[in-house]
Amino acid sequence: MKLTPKGMRDIPPEDMIIREQVIEKIRNVYRKYGFRPIETPALEYLDTLKAKAGEEADKQIFVIDGNEYGMRFDLTVPLARYAASADTPKPFKRYAIDKVWRKEEPQRGRFREFWQADVDIIGSKSMRCEAEALTIAREICFEFGFKKPKILINNRKILDGVAAKLGFEEQKPTVFRILDKLDKIGAEEVKKLLEELLGAAKAKELVSLINTKGDNKKKLEVAKKYSEEGARELEEIVAFCTFEVTIDLSLVRGLGYYTGPVFEVKLAEDMGSVAGGGRYDNLLGVYGQPAEATGISIGIERLMTLMLEKEKGKSKTYSKVFVACAKPEFYKNTIELAVELRASGISVETDLNERNLRKQFDYCNSLEIPYCIIIGQREVESRQFTLRDMKSGKEEQLPLDELIKRIVNDS
Amino acid sequence: MKLTPKGMRDIPPEDMIIREQVIEKIRNVYRKYGFRPIETPALEYLDTLKAKAGEEADKQIFVIDGNEYGMRFDLTVPLARYAASADTPKPFKRYAIDKVWRKEEPQRGRFREFWQADVDIIGSKSMRCEAEALTIAREICFEFGFKKPKILINNRKILDGVAAKLGFEEQKPTVFRILDKLDKIGAEEVKKLLEELLGAAKAKELVSLINTKGDNKKKLEVAKKYSEEGARELEEIVAFCTFEVTIDLSLVRGLGYYTGPVFEVKLAEDMGSVAGGGRYDNLLGVYGQPAEATGISIGIERLMTLMLEKEKGKSKTYSKVFVACAKPEFYKNTIELAVELRASGISVETDLNERNLRKQFDYCNSLEIPYCIIIGQREVESRQFTLRDMKSGKEEQLPLDELIKRIVNDS
Repeated sequence: MKLTPKGMRDIPPEDMIIREQVIEKIRNVYRKYGFRPIETPALEYLDTLKAKAGEEADKQIFVIDGNEYGMRFDLTVPLARYAASADTPKPFKRYAIDKVWRKEEPQRGRFREFWQADVDIIGSKSMRCEAEALTIAREICFEFGFKKPKILINNRKILDGVAAKLGFEEQKPTVFRILDKLDKIGAEEVKKLLEELLGAAKAKELVSLINTKGDNKKKLEVAKKYSEEGARELEEIVAFCTFEVTIDLSLVRGLGYYTGPVFEVKLAEDMGSVAGGGRYDNLLGVYGQPAEATGISIGIERLMTLMLEKEKGKSKTYSKVFVACAKPEFYKNTIELAVELRASGISVETDLNERNLRKQFDYCNSLEIPYCIIIGQREVESRQFTLRDMKSGKEEQLPLDELIKRIVNDS
Repeated sequence: MKLTPKGMRDIPPEDMIIREQVIEKIRNVYRKYGFRPIETPALEYLDTLKAKAGEEADKQIFVIDGNEYGMRFDLTVPLARYAASADTPKPFKRYAIDKVWRKEEPQRGRFREFWQADVDIIGSKSMRCEAEALTIAREICFEFGFKKPKILINNRKILDGVAAKLGFEEQKPTVFRILDKLDKIGAEEVKKLLEELLGAAKAKELVSLINTKGDNKKKLEVAKKYSEEGARELEEIVAFCTFEVTIDLSLVRGLGYYTGPVFEVKLAEDMGSVAGGGRYDNLLGVYGQPAEATGISIGIERLMTLMLEKEKGKSKTYSKVFVACAKPEFYKNTIELAVELRASGISVETDLNERNLRKQFDYCNSLEIPYCIIIGQREVESRQFTLRDMKSGKEEQLPLDELIKRIVNDS
């Protein structure tokens, strides 16, 4: 029997527990900023998906038989479709943490089914939105123990200004694609490709712009020559942020629909990107009701991989206590104790297989459940329980109320 | 522009907030019993899905282009496929709360995309499993405020015994389908259909069995005549449960794969079913590694509908406080206060649109955010804040630490 479809996978319990923690952490941050959840179907009309995707993305859509529907490849298109039809107070701040599907060639760490975790703000043109998106991304880095995230911003309007001034507007998409590869192929190769495309003079000015060194002030001075508005917006973002933000005039971000500021957050100076986003004021118009929009997507799969490396195997289960049953006639007493413990919020298992004590311990150990309590004649009569710490082997005799306190305090 | 695909829907924020609460409540109960999460892809090989579905279900599968994959129509098939290949300690207790897709004719309250919330126990033949599944379903009813759930059980082995004794094994699937409609079409109609199918004598004995009145003991006496084992299993379930369970010899449960006990939980005597399940010891063998299995599915869509009716519009947002900004030059101070409040876990919004106070209040009211604080010259200088209760209009002057305490205590 075949297993999962190509490029897809099962997530076993020990990984899922970590994934659930990652999702819960991110969701809590989103909620703390007043973002509200919406849910849209996994399937959309193909027309909806293709209205924006572009040829590249079109090929990646899993199409449903009958050719009417396709599976969503991101969470932004469904949001834009929803927001264009829904009557919500503005700004509409929404979060979505959900799966998307892309029929691309699977690679190490790249799957055909994966999670995205987005916040978007619909209906405001203020740079306060960009500052809030960056604040959220930074807080999430902190939540996962990365205390020195690197935050980079740029503005598409500046790049648009360059294209207008140098007269390469037709080739803009190709130029953006080349710039986007900077990290991968290096500055030399980028320069070469730009020279081939634009000629030496234009390439030189463009490369000189994106290579501008110095502090934000210096970069803004240069940027202003190409777009006053673009530079002013970046200035505002920097001013609204209560932390350091670095202007990087080479930052492009792949997606075609960005219209203004774009940003990228790295977990640390020398680590890869963990969040990215930007302003896309023209996308909602495609779905019938124009509105300003900006958003950031947290690289939740990246965070899950990092957490898996760090925490792998640390918790195989949510269970805190296994209540073992010395003889079948005490099973009802076993359940009664479990009921008491669960009423205090403790996660408890009992023996569902009618096995002997040895095998019950084996099960308890295989899942690394931290505590075990045995119910036998003595416990039923005395109402004193022996709490065994399965790791240290230490045992304590306790009455019910103290037993509960001990376990709850340990969590 | 078209909206959602046929039979599917967007869930707006005020509904999603309630849905998230329902999911979190159910998940907490599952975790308290030591169930562990797994996640499987939304897509499965068509072969995997069709290995078990049966003709009826086959037609309901959304097929992906190329005819290789289909979207899962339940969470049990993916579990069986997973469990048959994974090497996990037994019993393997897993929960899954996730979406499934069925291409059936949409009806009021029945959608083509919906949630399921399942717990299953793989690898134990003991009736302790059935008792635990029922305990969980009962606890969930309690969690949602239904303190008198009605729990019904029966055993397929008894019905199998009847079929063997009366010699209608060939017609068994049809008989089960008829019995399953009892609630819908009534006893008279069921009797008529059975007479047509089996003849008057056999129908009479079958109807007399399923109509057996009296207490559990009485019903077990009758059941024993058809299956000693089936009756003994029911007896054990009743004994393992610390609450009332009612044997109902007419209970069938639609699904073809049940092999032993089946059960159904109603929110109250006179309310519809909210959970159902049973034992399916033969299903995992289909996927290559036989193992005993039993499970229960909570009708999460039903609970969501009930909660929506009860709580609709009660919380449009997670936000507790809106920090308004009297003049743009105080926005940075506004953010600083928001940072302090969020650090205490409070959900806070600020004005992302650079609007005047009137419009900021309008936004705050439109989402029914409970509290508002205005930041102006006076607040920046005095570090005393006015907390306005938006519902009562009451205002309080408080320094930061007391402000935080006030809001946290109110949550």
